[in-house]
Amino acid sequence: MTRFALSIEYDGRPFVGWQRQDNGPSVQAAIERAVHAITGEGVAVQAAGRTDAGVHALGMRAHVDIERALTPFRLMEALNAKLRPDPVAIIGCEIVSEAWHARFSCVARHYEYRIVTRRAPLTWERGLAWRVAVPLDAAAMAAGAARLVGRHDFTTFRSAHCQADSPLRTLDRLDVVAEGERISVFASARSFLHHQVRSMVGCLSLVGQGKWSPDDMAKALAARDRAALGLNAPPDGLYFLRADYPDPA
Amino acid sequence: MTRFALSIEYDGRPFVGWQRQDNGPSVQAAIERAVHAITGEGVAVQAAGRTDAGVHALGMRAHVDIERALTPFRLMEALNAKLRPDPVAIIGCEIVSEAWHARFSCVARHYEYRIVTRRAPLTWERGLAWRVAVPLDAAAMAAGAARLVGRHDFTTFRSAHCQADSPLRTLDRLDVVAEGERISVFASARSFLHHQVRSMVGCLSLVGQGKWSPDDMAKALAARDRAALGLNAPPDGLYFLRADYPDPA
Repeated sequence: MTRFALSIEYDGRPFVGWQRQDNGPSVQAAIERAVHAITGEGVAVQAAGRTDAGVHALGMRAHVDIERALTPFRLMEALNAKLRPDPVAIIGCEIVSEAWHARFSCVARHYEYRIVTRRAPLTWERGLAWRVAVPLDAAAMAAGAARLVGRHDFTTFRSAHCQADSPLRTLDRLDVVAEGERISVFASARSFLHHQVRSMVGCLSLVGQGKWSPDDMAKALAARDRAALGLNAPPDGLYFLRADYPDPA
Repeated sequence: MTRFALSIEYDGRPFVGWQRQDNGPSVQAAIERAVHAITGEGVAVQAAGRTDAGVHALGMRAHVDIERALTPFRLMEALNAKLRPDPVAIIGCEIVSEAWHARFSCVARHYEYRIVTRRAPLTWERGLAWRVAVPLDAAAMAAGAARLVGRHDFTTFRSAHCQADSPLRTLDRLDVVAEGERISVFASARSFLHHQVRSMVGCLSLVGQGKWSPDDMAKALAARDRAALGLNAPPDGLYFLRADYPDPA
């Protein structure tokens, strides 16, 4: 048995999310089906993060255990061939020890949330960014974002369906980068609560519109109450960028 | 009668191209249909460039003459509402004089061609870039591109279906910009021959692979023979960026 660590890029639009579900196609099921087609083995692929429906990944990490002897390159090539026409690509593959776990060994997760501010609808980017029809003040958003960095109870920014034991998380980075009509919010933490990035970005968009002050972000956080949430941003703009691990995998 | 200049963004994937055709949906027909739905008027929309099937635009310019009294803002909003769900967006609209012609007044056209070099298939970018499965030497491509800048007979880089009277064109810019696995080729000229950008980029990809030397670009140009063309790049990576006009429109 060999454990392979995969780096995966996917377009979240056609999927119900990362996780295998009964109600539609998932990224996990697509990859497990591809592994089965190649090896005949029934496997469970474990990922660093279980993205929601419509959320994308540029560098998701996952692992899978395979009995059949294969080089990482051969496995990657075969997976990419079998994954067609699903918009899922294996962009990296390496052998790791059995101690390496895509989810439990992960020490940092990095997301980007992409916003386009303009009145006109999106065209080629539809479903790949959140279109906000009014201008946003990126400097105010950055000031609001700074209020959330650090170790806090993020109950306000947590989905009612979140299964985490604790609402405490340490947010290491929440940066707002603007260029013309495009705004990206970069979020990094060891782990996130369910909907945390989308909820933080949704509230930051209110700050950007002047409906909230930067301090209202701190107030919402202090409320520790989902009812204090201003807005949950749609999945369209969210990208899982990469996951960090302590040792060379 | 009022002449409106439009700035248009579109995703070329579902279209047979800019131009109205019998064999499928075109961007031109989509906009003309939207104008008709708003004004009841049968109009012909003229564009700066007639892009091929699968070619995109970030800032196509076009004009349309409308009898009904409308402000540019109202026209833009109404067009965007009627264009749904087609991936076409009016991102700018202004009143211009009847002397202003999107095609004949245009003094420069700017294109970008996007290449992604990697073995894995594209996911969210499928149809939005040309995936080349091998690494490309961007410096060699830049050296090859420099051989084409200037006024030349571009017969080699011209489609057999090109309807232009002359194969002489002045290429003002052909720049290769690389960042990681992404390479963009920027091309600017007063006007281009049919398939000229794709043909130049196709040959540059051969230079990038080492199959051609930079001087082979000059030889292909000097041949003035379509048979000397190495490769025509696919439409996927081509974007009409913008058009320049001599006076404030």
